[in-house]
Amino acid sequence: MEYRELDVVSIIEYLRSVKEVMDYFGSDELSAKEVGDGNLNYVYLVSSVSDAKKALIVKQAVPYLRCVGEEFALSRERMTFEIRALEEFKKITPSFVPNLYHCSEDMSIVVMQYLDSHLILREGLTAAQKYPNLSEHISTYLAQTLFKTSSLYLDSTSKRELIDRFNSNTELCKLTEDFVFTSAFMDDETNDSENVKENPLAKNLFEDMEFKEKILGLKYKFMTQSDALIHGDLHTGSIMLNQDETFVIDPEFAFVGPFGFDIGALVANLVNNYIHHSVVTKDEDFKEYLLDSVKEILELFESKFLDLWNRQKDSALLRDGYIDDETALKYKQKFLKNILRDSVGFAGCKMARRVFGVAGVAEIRGIENKELRNEAEAMVLGIAREFVMKYKNLESVDEVLGMIKNAR
Amino acid sequence: MEYRELDVVSIIEYLRSVKEVMDYFGSDELSAKEVGDGNLNYVYLVSSVSDAKKALIVKQAVPYLRCVGEEFALSRERMTFEIRALEEFKKITPSFVPNLYHCSEDMSIVVMQYLDSHLILREGLTAAQKYPNLSEHISTYLAQTLFKTSSLYLDSTSKRELIDRFNSNTELCKLTEDFVFTSAFMDDETNDSENVKENPLAKNLFEDMEFKEKILGLKYKFMTQSDALIHGDLHTGSIMLNQDETFVIDPEFAFVGPFGFDIGALVANLVNNYIHHSVVTKDEDFKEYLLDSVKEILELFESKFLDLWNRQKDSALLRDGYIDDETALKYKQKFLKNILRDSVGFAGCKMARRVFGVAGVAEIRGIENKELRNEAEAMVLGIAREFVMKYKNLESVDEVLGMIKNAR
Repeated sequence: MEYRELDVVSIIEYLRSVKEVMDYFGSDELSAKEVGDGNLNYVYLVSSVSDAKKALIVKQAVPYLRCVGEEFALSRERMTFEIRALEEFKKITPSFVPNLYHCSEDMSIVVMQYLDSHLILREGLTAAQKYPNLSEHISTYLAQTLFKTSSLYLDSTSKRELIDRFNSNTELCKLTEDFVFTSAFMDDETNDSENVKENPLAKNLFEDMEFKEKILGLKYKFMTQSDALIHGDLHTGSIMLNQDETFVIDPEFAFVGPFGFDIGALVANLVNNYIHHSVVTKDEDFKEYLLDSVKEILELFESKFLDLWNRQKDSALLRDGYIDDETALKYKQKFLKNILRDSVGFAGCKMARRVFGVAGVAEIRGIENKELRNEAEAMVLGIAREFVMKYKNLESVDEVLGMIKNAR
Repeated sequence: MEYRELDVVSIIEYLRSVKEVMDYFGSDELSAKEVGDGNLNYVYLVSSVSDAKKALIVKQAVPYLRCVGEEFALSRERMTFEIRALEEFKKITPSFVPNLYHCSEDMSIVVMQYLDSHLILREGLTAAQKYPNLSEHISTYLAQTLFKTSSLYLDSTSKRELIDRFNSNTELCKLTEDFVFTSAFMDDETNDSENVKENPLAKNLFEDMEFKEKILGLKYKFMTQSDALIHGDLHTGSIMLNQDETFVIDPEFAFVGPFGFDIGALVANLVNNYIHHSVVTKDEDFKEYLLDSVKEILELFESKFLDLWNRQKDSALLRDGYIDDETALKYKQKFLKNILRDSVGFAGCKMARRVFGVAGVAEIRGIENKELRNEAEAMVLGIAREFVMKYKNLESVDEVLGMIKNAR
């Protein structure tokens, strides 16, 4: 099928030709409205006119950056990788990925479950909403997706096939290389220029060569370490949940990259939220919940990943009978410690880049009182620096917690 | 063109249809003879009947392992990767790669320069032949090929395209994973079973869990570290040279892998040769030459790689203006130290696997006196263990030399 850009009218007609969607809606009359506020794509809610609860989400990529317009070209093939990642992750952890009704790489379109009772995690956390299952769910999601797309589980051929299917996601990988690891730490036209001009911390950061050298090491790891299929942009805006269910969405940045990157993204965004509450609401109870969540996610991830690994008798890396169980366990524990270290390093990059870089996070950049915002930014940069300077020698999750709690 | 297996008769007919080959031979009558003694492919020397010096080498892959026969299937697509690597390396370092007259991925065939006055490096070294340009040439080859296919030189898109073109070389990568990093260190039917049974060092090695845990770490690096396009099998049998010229051949194992693997392969094979002379010829002068070569290759590689990097103002990794020159240099020096470390680690794997694994090297396995062979094997395993246990903390090339010289 040849690609064409859909709108609220043509989308209905398009969906009429998709059996899986028609099976869902039956003969109901349909209506569509645009609901997306994302930067990249168009998102529509398509629902039954007679029963608004009967609804699906349609997401289509256009060959430019939606939030800027047609002058900022961005190939719509990003949806190809989002589709492939959704399908891959759905197979591995079906309960944490929305149901998929229709995917077309030609049309750069995906039709999926409407999460009508779920909120974006970032919004929930900013409103001090606790989610009792978050740590449990997201640690399972991380352990399952990372382990089962790695050489610790797959055979060599399957691993290389996986790399093949995501290797051309160059454009979005490059966005990360540029915006997460480079531009936000130097003079660059994409930065938040007002803040760069007014906040003396910008100069400090841009001249902090020790810190920037470490960032370079993490960038190199991002560019060359083919551990597992990662989501690639797992901030708290990519998670939708309620008290019962948790869903991970928007994996268009997916590629075979380093284990620690998704974990780091999540930790970074939880810590940014913690800083928001430290400065704005001063809600000590919720801050405690956030710290507990960071601790639980890191510890549960580790134990679940290790458990999956122990149950795997043969893999591309470790052939059955090659070493004794005791040595294998020692190796695995060191391996997991290195994932923890890298996660914390990546978390530091991800936090620091939000201060002056092109895309801020609501919890920090959205603080309207300038003094408080500056206070929050100083905290972000303080913790990020601790993370980035010390990640290589971390021994435990508690040390990470200490770095967060001891920040001014 | 559809693939068909050629022989000494049909090959002439085939070549008649290739313009570049006919441009070379003109209207001369041609004859072909099989000259290959390799494990994998058929190699023919095609020459002019009237002028035997006018000759080309034709190499064709068959869909099985030549040295075993049709019952050991091995996809002929390995030649696809050999062709791509020859073309890539030829572009980067033309003087160290034979001239290519014709390449066909369909026919799994390559026609190239006949190196009539050149010897396989392994044979030369075993005959105590010194090559005054070896260190200079091979360090240039390594620095050029590794630097210019890495993210330190290429932009993100070109790097990913390079990965794409070699990512499916799964079969040969898997041979390395199995034979270099796994089978040779455990009971396995592919091993040299007689030696495993008779030599008590086999039991020591197979039960050396500390050592095997380190091997596992190096195997993981081999499987997941996408630094640069590597040759993948750069032992002294893959180098042909004389007093003036040096050529690197047979890159069918090429893929985007870790920087240290090719360097390590070369070091391993030079050290194996050193051990041969220590035990068999006791030629102290030539041993000195081999040690000097190891030192020169490692040091020249480092300075040439650094020089290329310093002249590169902008790359996928390091954007111009991101850090000051002093910090950049510090980063690069640490980076190069890590390449040295990994090279020595890989050298250790490559040496140790030659003792009991499926494919020995002539210098060691070919020693007919059993006592001397055992002595040599003990030395190989002793040095390999030093390399593998200590590579992570190496600070200098001289330490590496010390490990070699201090072996019993």
